[in-house]
Amino acid sequence: MLGPVWPDGTDRLAGKDMNLFPTLSNAWLLSENGRIAAYGTMDQELPEADEVIDATGRWVLPAFCDSHTHLVFARSREEEFEMRIRGRSYEEIAAAGGGILNSARKLQQASADELEASALERLAEIERMGTGAVEIKSGYGLTVDAELKILRVIQKLRSQSRLIIRSTFLGAHALPLEYRQDRNGYIKLITDVMLPQIADEGLADYCDVFCENGFFTPEETDTILQAAWKYDIAPRIHANQLAVSGGVQAGVRNNAISVDHLEHITRNEIDCLLDSNTLPTALPSCSFFLNLPYAPGRDIIDAGLPLVLATDYNPGSTPSGKIPFVLSLACIKMRLTPEEAINAVTVNGAAAMQISDRAGSITAGKDARLIITRPMEHLAYLPYAFGGDHIERTILPTIS
Amino acid sequence: MLGPVWPDGTDRLAGKDMNLFPTLSNAWLLSENGRIAAYGTMDQELPEADEVIDATGRWVLPAFCDSHTHLVFARSREEEFEMRIRGRSYEEIAAAGGGILNSARKLQQASADELEASALERLAEIERMGTGAVEIKSGYGLTVDAELKILRVIQKLRSQSRLIIRSTFLGAHALPLEYRQDRNGYIKLITDVMLPQIADEGLADYCDVFCENGFFTPEETDTILQAAWKYDIAPRIHANQLAVSGGVQAGVRNNAISVDHLEHITRNEIDCLLDSNTLPTALPSCSFFLNLPYAPGRDIIDAGLPLVLATDYNPGSTPSGKIPFVLSLACIKMRLTPEEAINAVTVNGAAAMQISDRAGSITAGKDARLIITRPMEHLAYLPYAFGGDHIERTILPTIS
Repeated sequence: MLGPVWPDGTDRLAGKDMNLFPTLSNAWLLSENGRIAAYGTMDQELPEADEVIDATGRWVLPAFCDSHTHLVFARSREEEFEMRIRGRSYEEIAAAGGGILNSARKLQQASADELEASALERLAEIERMGTGAVEIKSGYGLTVDAELKILRVIQKLRSQSRLIIRSTFLGAHALPLEYRQDRNGYIKLITDVMLPQIADEGLADYCDVFCENGFFTPEETDTILQAAWKYDIAPRIHANQLAVSGGVQAGVRNNAISVDHLEHITRNEIDCLLDSNTLPTALPSCSFFLNLPYAPGRDIIDAGLPLVLATDYNPGSTPSGKIPFVLSLACIKMRLTPEEAINAVTVNGAAAMQISDRAGSITAGKDARLIITRPMEHLAYLPYAFGGDHIERTILPTIS
Repeated sequence: MLGPVWPDGTDRLAGKDMNLFPTLSNAWLLSENGRIAAYGTMDQELPEADEVIDATGRWVLPAFCDSHTHLVFARSREEEFEMRIRGRSYEEIAAAGGGILNSARKLQQASADELEASALERLAEIERMGTGAVEIKSGYGLTVDAELKILRVIQKLRSQSRLIIRSTFLGAHALPLEYRQDRNGYIKLITDVMLPQIADEGLADYCDVFCENGFFTPEETDTILQAAWKYDIAPRIHANQLAVSGGVQAGVRNNAISVDHLEHITRNEIDCLLDSNTLPTALPSCSFFLNLPYAPGRDIIDAGLPLVLATDYNPGSTPSGKIPFVLSLACIKMRLTPEEAINAVTVNGAAAMQISDRAGSITAGKDARLIITRPMEHLAYLPYAFGGDHIERTILPTIS
């Protein structure tokens, strides 16, 4: 089975159509120079090909587009996981040196080569799990040098991985300790020092802010995103993970590509998104790991919005980059249909990274950036058989 | 790292010791004729060996012992999963032909060869995920012929798989439609027809009953288990999944090896288990998939009981046989420590299958039935990095 097949290369699915999933059964697909050249059914005359892959009994899908990760980091943080199990509070863990500042300290000490090597391993891991395009954020640097280091590593990964990589500057991830008494000083460092240099080197496709109670306010978010727009760097932000914080509205009024998390949203936030071009993105693996509420994905789709799903792969709150598990959570915990969930990580994930011309659907002219599943009759088997190893092969164009 | 190392071959961990996890770092292990012949540290003189496996930077653990599965079945049931997502109730799904009776109908129609072939694929799958011993139940037959068919398939699997396989007769899984007006008739069929023939052919190590409101009562459970004991077939039962039903007490008074599920238990059930040799077994993957409460694993351990964890692999309520995911759920959802969780699926899982002389710990004389993880510093990484593919190699003795 081949799907979703969108002959017109539809940029992104409208919310009301999220369950649409046009397929071709008994199908072939021709890849030429890394692009989808043509496709059809086996009862037609087949084109000639140098190499033939038999996918009988399997599904051929677009590779997953994971639009929210923090996958360049220095060290995993399983010691904080154990502290949480043993009943330590976030405050105690932070006091013991945990949290984002823990990752920042470790990243500041790591060399660029070390960061690159471990990130390449993670890219290989998510490629095996079906991911063909990924967004990666900075934000574990929190100093000029360390933010530049992480963004330069992301830049370098592009020449060494077959995944499409989109880069996001997240200087406003947490307030560094040395700025505890000078919030405006750090925000000025972001807007007046980091952003100009990042723009100058062309290191970021997007600018992100952790807009949340206890992190950055909606007003501070405005300041940072307006500064980013001056360099033509578009926003995509963290919003409404811990509370109804005004983050969605801050994203929309700054024309963010996407507002991500959304565990705490009301009808106001949904209406605000309906009036915008900003995409709502849910990160269910984070809710799973932290035992927090799931974003109301079912309500978001039912309201007519095009939901995006992503992993949030990071060492603190989501030590997993596995999109097939996100699909299981979307269906089991958010009551999305399998088709909606897969659209959310393919067509909609591509839209959230502005790579719809290359990825996210079976459309002639797009990249031959594909997954072949293990043998399965129904697409629903993929989210249903949770935890399984369902991707037999990820096919990505060679590095050009 | 090598662990848990129990030189004295401790049969099973006491509850109060469940966090004990003795390890050897910088270690070697010698396997001879499929048995652990010796182990030690690399600063000692090394024994000679024909083949050397380098496990530097990895953990070597006993292979997992999964003491509760239904992994011989005819067909997956993702269509019911979709019906649940779309808001259909259990009653509607049952009326549309779903549930255990759906599996039973499909199993009755399947040939023994088909059942064997698909079960072998599942055994290979769980072996890749680190399982080295597994219990498999009948219960999708529900007729004399079909129950015998499934038990004979399980018997045959033993000669074709390197996993240790324990077999459980679960005729009392659900009441077949044709006995809706004659409960006693079906119970008599179990006790007077099925059990004698199963005992005669030596097809079952255990006898199970789904002791639950709407399925079989504690009194009916007594009748069936007493009949099984006459043939020296020990009980292990399903209890307290949907309500405080008297199932735990029924298990204990019939000297069950294990009472499984336990999502609904009170202090009474814990006290009852403390007074017994019956092991409490939790199945968190089932709670995850059905969005039901988790068994209070933390409380069970804190009360001093030796908790067992298993997958419940089956097509209706747990389409996953992945023990590493059970470990993640145990830590994230039940607040077990990584060491407690791993003890629950190794030493304690072996005890729940009465194979402690062969499996469940690093002890000289036991089988060299082992896992080598991917490189990881801390054992906590295994449950922490949920959904991942952490087992590099499962080593099982060849079939003797």
